Amino acid sequence: MASAIGNTARGYSVDVTDNSSMQEVFDEIAQEQGPVDTLIYNAGNARWGNVDSIKADELLPGFDVNVAGLIRAVQAVLPAMRSAGQGNVIVVGAGAALRGRPDTLGFAAAKAAQRSVCQSLARQLGPEGIHVALLILDGVVDIPSTMQRMADKPKEFFLSADGTADAAFALTQQNRQAWTFELDLRPFGERW
Amino acid sequence: MASAIGNTARGYSVDVTDNSSMQEVFDEIAQEQGPVDTLIYNAGNARWGNVDSIKADELLPGFDVNVAGLIRAVQAVLPAMRSAGQGNVIVVGAGAALRGRPDTLGFAAAKAAQRSVCQSLARQLGPEGIHVALLILDGVVDIPSTMQRMADKPKEFFLSADGTADAAFALTQQNRQAWTFELDLRPFGERW
Amino acid sequence: MASAIGNTARGYSVDVTDNSSMQEVFDEIAQEQGPVDTLIYNAGNARWGNVDSIKADELLPGFDVNVAGLIRAVQAVLPAMRSAGQGNVIVVGAGAALRGRPDTLGFAAAKAAQRSVCQSLARQLGPEGIHVALLILDGVVDIPSTMQRMADKPKEFFLSADGTADAAFALTQQNRQAWTFELDLRPFGERW
Amino acid sequence: MASAIGNTARGYSVDVTDNSSMQEVFDEIAQEQGPVDTLIYNAGNARWGNVDSIKADELLPGFDVNVAGLIRAVQAVLPAMRSAGQGNVIVVGAGAALRGRPDTLGFAAAKAAQRSVCQSLARQLGPEGIHVALLILDGVVDIPSTMQRMADKPKEFFLSADGTADAAFALTQQNRQAWTFELDLRPFGERW
Repeated sequence: MASAIGNTARGYSVDVTDNSSMQEVFDEIAQEQGPVDTLIYNAGNARWGNVDSIKADELLPGFDVNVAGLIRAVQAVLPAMRSAGQGNVIVVGAGAALRGRPDTLGFAAAKAAQRSVCQSLARQLGPEGIHVALLILDGVVDIPSTMQRMADKPKEFFLSADGTADAAFALTQQNRQAWTFELDLRPFGERW
Repeated sequence: MASAIGNTARGYSVDVTDNSSMQEVFDEIAQEQGPVDTLIYNAGNARWGNVDSIKADELLPGFDVNVAGLIRAVQAVLPAMRSAGQGNVIVVGAGAALRGRPDTLGFAAAKAAQRSVCQSLARQLGPEGIHVALLILDGVVDIPSTMQRMADKPKEFFLSADGTADAAFALTQQNRQAWTFELDLRPFGERW
Repeated sequence: MASAIGNTARGYSVDVTDNSSMQEVFDEIAQEQGPVDTLIYNAGNARWGNVDSIKADELLPGFDVNVAGLIRAVQAVLPAMRSAGQGNVIVVGAGAALRGRPDTLGFAAAKAAQRSVCQSLARQLGPEGIHVALLILDGVVDIPSTMQRMADKPKEFFLSADGTADAAFALTQQNRQAWTFELDLRPFGERW
Repeated sequence: MASAIGNTARGYSVDVTDNSSMQEVFDEIAQEQGPVDTLIYNAGNARWGNVDSIKADELLPGFDVNVAGLIRAVQAVLPAMRSAGQGNVIVVGAGAALRGRPDTLGFAAAKAAQRSVCQSLARQLGPEGIHVALLILDGVVDIPSTMQRMADKPKEFFLSADGTADAAFALTQQNRQAWTFELDLRPFGERW
């Protein structure tokens, strides 16, 4: 089903922590492809470590990428979505958003903050016809780099990137009288 | 998309609080239509009222229908799903499961208990290839009886039954490497 | 601090699932000791087991004791508390209320339902000056029977009954401009 | 009860976003008053506004104060607490941590992140004998500045600062076999 997205995808590079870079890239996208109707925000940076190994200042980039970057992206696409009276903002979150553990101190905090922001956005923009939704990924996605790094794990260990894309796509197709804000995704054998 | 379910639906009557009635109807279904691969549990009974208006004994039927009935249904279909190594159990829950309010004392408690049971089932049966999922309905479904009773409400007030069916259907189609346990559904304009 | 409760405690037996037994015992208490100002509800029954080992009907007594019994007790003491314009209802809940696991299917569901009821009660009765609060016990309480049954565990494994009583007592002493609805209690070394 | 804390309180000024300022002030405190056994972290900054009125960069100071500042403070007191094999870290959080609303976008996100960090800290430091706890304040505290600003509100509208201090003090007195991680505090008449 993921292939339904088509073969005309195009990549654009952007620094999500840089206001002007963000504005420029979305201007470029709008010019080349028309107004954005669906934003999928998957920028993230995982700084692992606990209170003994993390420096306080090292926590801030996680908020800049996961939270402030999301706001920058939403603010860039919002005028066009409002003009259209519709649009989708899908954010890729993580199970860590729901609980802080010693070694995920920084990552969990950034994802918890991001989830809170998604709630704020969904509650404001839903009544305007703009669908804000959050995917809670619980597992390690089966992209080449992680599969290589965890080469001893069986295929069933990994969370499917295709399945995740299908879930994101399904959210964009929902009837607006039955919208989902949040759904979790995990491999069937995952302990949770 | 809901029409993809087909035109060959058949109704069966059952008392979900009666062990032998449950077993009989599922035997009949299996005989006439083959083993059940997807169970959607939507039995519910809403007894409204607060601590001043509810009698303690009146709370028990809510648990019998929403919780024990679910277990009866799951136990009836589980052997066939286990033989097949797959299956879907989709439960129709409610936003009330997440918070108890004065006038939803009995309903919220039954739905909170049902949600807990769904978690227990999902954690046990997921690794066996059986997908247990919970829909959190937040709104009044647009079935004829409710629309008639709330005739002054605009169409946008109601939660779409078709949209809800689409969400349930989508859950049954998920790749098992990316399963959802819980998702919420509400009209786009709903305050939450 | 627990000793501050005094040396004049008296026990009364009651079947919390029996409406008339409940009314009688609270009448007796009121007659002998005056109106109840603090109710601590700790009745519980843990039926362990998962979907394979529990019979649906076996789930119902858990709701009768943990939920309907609580309502019976609250209804028995409520008139006196309302006359006084104050009172405390402290409910002893469990961490299982927050998550359903395979082998706690029945217990977790009953405690989740009880927590929901406590929220309904607190939201209704708080503005009347009656403080409803929930203790979320996360651990095995160090009463003689459990310590004997788990004789191989170190003292630090157990949740202190005295500490739990102190927490309950502290709730009854709170200034009504700073009331707690819910607090968790666990041994310092517990994993959660 | 709050007066039990004594009449020898002393104030120290510090910029919680400045690493060296933090280290200096805690060195000074340790020199003048001995090692810190209880840290109460109440630094906060509320930047109100929604996606239309907040600039992305304005979100970062909230994380610096509520999250990174907490880590700076904990790291400053941790060596002494570890030497003593005990200590208390009490963090003053907010109900906003539990839900993001349109106009609390920045504040709620910072408090959600702070709550996650408190969980990470509590899970790591609890087994070392250091008690990390979170107060969830749900209401407007009755300090002179807020009471003046909301002069039309009755006394019962406000959350008691004394009651909050009592709750914090009670946490520091808990038997370590019955520790609380999180408790909420609100005026008895508050809607929640």
